[in-house]
Amino acid sequence: MPATIERQDGEGQDTHQGLAWPVTAALRALAMDAVEQAKSGHPGAPMGMAEIAAVLWRGVMRHDPADPRWPDRDRFVLSNGHASMLLYGLLHLTGYDLPIEELKRFRQLHSKTPGHPEYRMTPGVETTTGPLGQGLTNAVGMALAERTLAAQFNRPGHAIVDHRTFVVLGDGCLMEGISHEAASLAGRLGLGKLIAVWDDNGISIDGKVTEWFSDDTPARFRAYGWQVIEGVDGHDPEAIARAFAQALADQTKPTLICARTTIGRGAPTKQGHQDTHGAPLGAEEIARTRAAMGWTHPPFHVPAEVYAAWDGRARGAALSAEWRDRFSTYAAAHPDLAAEFERRLAGDLPAGFADAAAVALTAETAAGAVATRKAGQIALTEFAKALPELLGGSADLAHSNLTFHPKSVPVTRDPAGNQILFGVREFGMSAIANGLALHGGFIPYVATFLVFSDYARNAVRMSALMGLRVIYVFTHDSISVGEDGPTHQPIEHVESLRLIPGLDVWRPADAAETAVAWTAALERRDGPTALILTRQALPPQPTSGLDVLAETGARVLRDAVGPCATLVATGSEVRLATDAAALLAQAGLPVRVVSVPCVERFEALPVEARAALVPAGTPVVVVEAGVTRGWRGLAGPAGRVVGLDRFGESAPEKDLLKEFGFTAERVADVVAAAVGGSAGGAA
Amino acid sequence: MPATIERQDGEGQDTHQGLAWPVTAALRALAMDAVEQAKSGHPGAPMGMAEIAAVLWRGVMRHDPADPRWPDRDRFVLSNGHASMLLYGLLHLTGYDLPIEELKRFRQLHSKTPGHPEYRMTPGVETTTGPLGQGLTNAVGMALAERTLAAQFNRPGHAIVDHRTFVVLGDGCLMEGISHEAASLAGRLGLGKLIAVWDDNGISIDGKVTEWFSDDTPARFRAYGWQVIEGVDGHDPEAIARAFAQALADQTKPTLICARTTIGRGAPTKQGHQDTHGAPLGAEEIARTRAAMGWTHPPFHVPAEVYAAWDGRARGAALSAEWRDRFSTYAAAHPDLAAEFERRLAGDLPAGFADAAAVALTAETAAGAVATRKAGQIALTEFAKALPELLGGSADLAHSNLTFHPKSVPVTRDPAGNQILFGVREFGMSAIANGLALHGGFIPYVATFLVFSDYARNAVRMSALMGLRVIYVFTHDSISVGEDGPTHQPIEHVESLRLIPGLDVWRPADAAETAVAWTAALERRDGPTALILTRQALPPQPTSGLDVLAETGARVLRDAVGPCATLVATGSEVRLATDAAALLAQAGLPVRVVSVPCVERFEALPVEARAALVPAGTPVVVVEAGVTRGWRGLAGPAGRVVGLDRFGESAPEKDLLKEFGFTAERVADVVAAAVGGSAGGAA
Repeated sequence: MPATIERQDGEGQDTHQGLAWPVTAALRALAMDAVEQAKSGHPGAPMGMAEIAAVLWRGVMRHDPADPRWPDRDRFVLSNGHASMLLYGLLHLTGYDLPIEELKRFRQLHSKTPGHPEYRMTPGVETTTGPLGQGLTNAVGMALAERTLAAQFNRPGHAIVDHRTFVVLGDGCLMEGISHEAASLAGRLGLGKLIAVWDDNGISIDGKVTEWFSDDTPARFRAYGWQVIEGVDGHDPEAIARAFAQALADQTKPTLICARTTIGRGAPTKQGHQDTHGAPLGAEEIARTRAAMGWTHPPFHVPAEVYAAWDGRARGAALSAEWRDRFSTYAAAHPDLAAEFERRLAGDLPAGFADAAAVALTAETAAGAVATRKAGQIALTEFAKALPELLGGSADLAHSNLTFHPKSVPVTRDPAGNQILFGVREFGMSAIANGLALHGGFIPYVATFLVFSDYARNAVRMSALMGLRVIYVFTHDSISVGEDGPTHQPIEHVESLRLIPGLDVWRPADAAETAVAWTAALERRDGPTALILTRQALPPQPTSGLDVLAETGARVLRDAVGPCATLVATGSEVRLATDAAALLAQAGLPVRVVSVPCVERFEALPVEARAALVPAGTPVVVVEAGVTRGWRGLAGPAGRVVGLDRFGESAPEKDLLKEFGFTAERVADVVAAAVGGSAGGAA
Repeated sequence: MPATIERQDGEGQDTHQGLAWPVTAALRALAMDAVEQAKSGHPGAPMGMAEIAAVLWRGVMRHDPADPRWPDRDRFVLSNGHASMLLYGLLHLTGYDLPIEELKRFRQLHSKTPGHPEYRMTPGVETTTGPLGQGLTNAVGMALAERTLAAQFNRPGHAIVDHRTFVVLGDGCLMEGISHEAASLAGRLGLGKLIAVWDDNGISIDGKVTEWFSDDTPARFRAYGWQVIEGVDGHDPEAIARAFAQALADQTKPTLICARTTIGRGAPTKQGHQDTHGAPLGAEEIARTRAAMGWTHPPFHVPAEVYAAWDGRARGAALSAEWRDRFSTYAAAHPDLAAEFERRLAGDLPAGFADAAAVALTAETAAGAVATRKAGQIALTEFAKALPELLGGSADLAHSNLTFHPKSVPVTRDPAGNQILFGVREFGMSAIANGLALHGGFIPYVATFLVFSDYARNAVRMSALMGLRVIYVFTHDSISVGEDGPTHQPIEHVESLRLIPGLDVWRPADAAETAVAWTAALERRDGPTALILTRQALPPQPTSGLDVLAETGARVLRDAVGPCATLVATGSEVRLATDAAALLAQAGLPVRVVSVPCVERFEALPVEARAALVPAGTPVVVVEAGVTRGWRGLAGPAGRVVGLDRFGESAPEKDLLKEFGFTAERVADVVAAAVGGSAGGAA
């Protein structure tokens, strides 16, 4: 190993000397060794990005390995998440709580080094990445959160929020459509503290990307309004450092640094080839690479002087201490703001939350027969008064989703604003919401038509996988959308969202249930919620069971002595169920009606509590204007599901409901058939 | 009304005279009247695009109203599908079989004029649009189909395939991420016969787009390698005509015509405002607009001389007759090719199909224990020999999905090729596949990891909604993906795809079932199929019931005299079920094992046929490494579902199967518990 750990000027120009820089050799060796030991993984990108990472993590980025949650740290996102060993190497070498034993257990069960970086699993991992393009988009959300939080909390002479968001991305991220949505909106918003580095290695899994990707990417990003720094040699530390300096200097535009790199750099016979992307290099090539780098150490061994050169703890401690001093001064000058800042960052609801929830519920009860999207707006209006952390908007459907309120101020007009006009960018919006939640200080909510939750689906999944408090407002929730027809009528969507582990799906039956749903979504700290709301007005239902609905997910709306069946329904079909129950009662067939706005909470109940709501022994008939498959278990062999297992049609709502049998008469008939009686006289 | 129906040179410069052109006034009036009558709809875009549409449909586009399926017609796609009244107006006025009565029934049940254009519903509608960005992407697929078909069938002196694909799109389409994927790939492929017109009206639903969309769109499309024609006055017919002429002249690059328009143009007080976008103008404004246009006719009335000016039937008949002559000459010179062309366009499978299927099945049986993704490749290899209409590829995962074969030739290297290297563009790929299928002449297949079906989900839905033969190959289908971890492990996806109406989802248990699934997908003319395939090898199962599996969707793999339970499984879990059955037999608990690779076909069976496979009376235990909710109906109250209702982990497959209980021993225990016995001795 060369005696000099730190590089000299001009070394980056020399390929061989560059390779022999022990600082980057350590990163490359750890990536090779861990992938080899795991017998799977992606060595190519970590090896190709070693110099970029070293320059960024050792000097540019402000972070404290001992305090990975320090609020004003710079954020780092590895959008090409398969390069996870780069990140684990960086965390280990700079002094985070990630010992070498964890690197040896790369990709093993319950290690802190999973195949792709996972939020909450590893200190210093800011987001879960792997699904391409979403890391970049999370970063846009983080940068927006930083700017908004700064505008809300900084005061003259007190910049307590002032950090950068760095994101590294590959060709794959740039090909994904979501990169367009994210970069376009970041350009419009002028997120000047967002700095992206494109690992331009010209290779993706199928080979040389020119065969399927020939964009002029710098021109594309300039068209979005970004600062673009082109032609940076990604293996020349000096050039990289200059590019970061230029990026840091312009705070009016996001920056894309285009860094030309060689995938798998250092591996003498494999570098530059897709074979380095997603498979171990093999013992022979690893030996050759060690020789080329002059790295004589055994696997997973890093000499003390290299650790010392990487160690970021002293610098980090100084940076975070300086910030704590700044925050103390701020707290002395603005004690209330400081306390509020700490509450916001902790994710605690404000003291007035319970009151706001009560007021919202009262307002809903007074609202009468309204669409649940309108009820959602009523709830949002009340909560927005009490929760300045609410930051959200719609994908160009604000006036349809009704996700604005009297205190809405677009962030484009006031950086301290609370409304984001996302444009027609459902996927980008949702991954940005994940970034807002990851950053901290905000409860994001985002909205579109339910049918277009499809466009955003993997970001919803990522909210759930990361356990983020993101609120999805999906309106226009069934064939009752009407004339817009089958492209706009959800059929499979409510049930499909219920299948995502960890996502709470609420489909309220009236305005009051909508208030409960909004309240539950806000109170839930460990995961996302989807609010499924109607376009059309729904009558208010009885208030029985509302007080415990957040726990039970279900409530009895109408009961009977000795009921012959239980009618279970959600959302707009609850009205049908209660109307059918009235018809059945006239026909001498008393039934219980149960609203189940949140299946997840209902199913989480102990079996006795569930049976207390939906008893065994009499047939269960479920009514929901969507696919039936998920409900057949609850209905059981003696029951029925009144649903819709085909696409809808373009027509006025009333015609569709009749066409597809969503009438109280038909529901009553189905119940009567299930119990072996007849509702004919009544219907 | 002015006496002159046809415009004079220079008229387009004069706003007022331009408005009074009866040809466009008719289109505007029909859009206003139909939306007003329906009391819902989108008048703004049709009114804004009247001149563009008139120039295109009356002179530029080669179409025959009397023969909307003429193979060499130009294709027209309205990517901003909410502007459907523009298309219906054009179809009606140029002479398609769409009488004025249908326009009066705009957005009514079972009319031919649904809220958004629907394929198969209305003659002349080439694709279903509404979900933004997908129409543009369908058009990319159509243009690629045209070029590939031309390369495969045209011969010197015989250009039987030679048409354009026109697509109109709005700001919303351009904001969607899929527009990036589609335009980037179209640029790389150099689809020179694709001509897109951007209706640049500066308005989307939430208002003036500059607030959230400030891209330099011309620069962006130039970065993709498109010809961009900027600054076209979208209300000046001369300027529009010049732009089309320039677009037609360059066949090396796709063209974007940037046409500045005013939304709702003609409506004196509302034009240029988002209020015209999605709501009727109202009687008063309609009256004002009629006055401004000098259009004195009652609603839905078009004078004969205006009909005459629009009538495209004579021109269309001449165009299609000329093509039929050309085709006759071609057929005389190349009779086999002509017959093959007609077969391909009709969508009929070749005479050798049954033999190919038999050979594929034999090859699979010989393959032994292989991953079903490998079995998929074996089937594809055989079918590719017999079906030159197979055109497809993967989203940068060809070597993981195994969706290439010895006869694969990339279309980038040979325009007559059969492989598309889609890059990391799952959504774009899928909507392009829809375009290929819509064009005709091809059976498209596309591939990615199952977990990333999320990215493409709405395009899969559109395949189903349109009833298109598109084959989705989704590999790496469960936690058995292993080390890549939860971002790459599907949990909810198989079940979630089953919820899409009309989509056949096959999850084969071994190589032979994979051949049956591929065969069924190819034989299905009326809808898409998803093939859910494993990363890991699976042992071959018995061949019982394979011969009818395409009809039944399920088969008995192992039976017993007086079985005490039925074990139902799919895909990789069938092996678990048979292993568990062996353990249970040792313990004196004989069970039947049923593989259900295609739930849709199983559920379509008559109830007796289903009961013959999965009998009532003994408990049913279902095993699938995914969410359980959808299977609870089949399992019933006496049965069990062995599944996974949480996200996975990053670890080697064998560790995960143990961690999450996917072992034969646990399955046997669950069955034993269900029947009230014990498998303890055996396990």
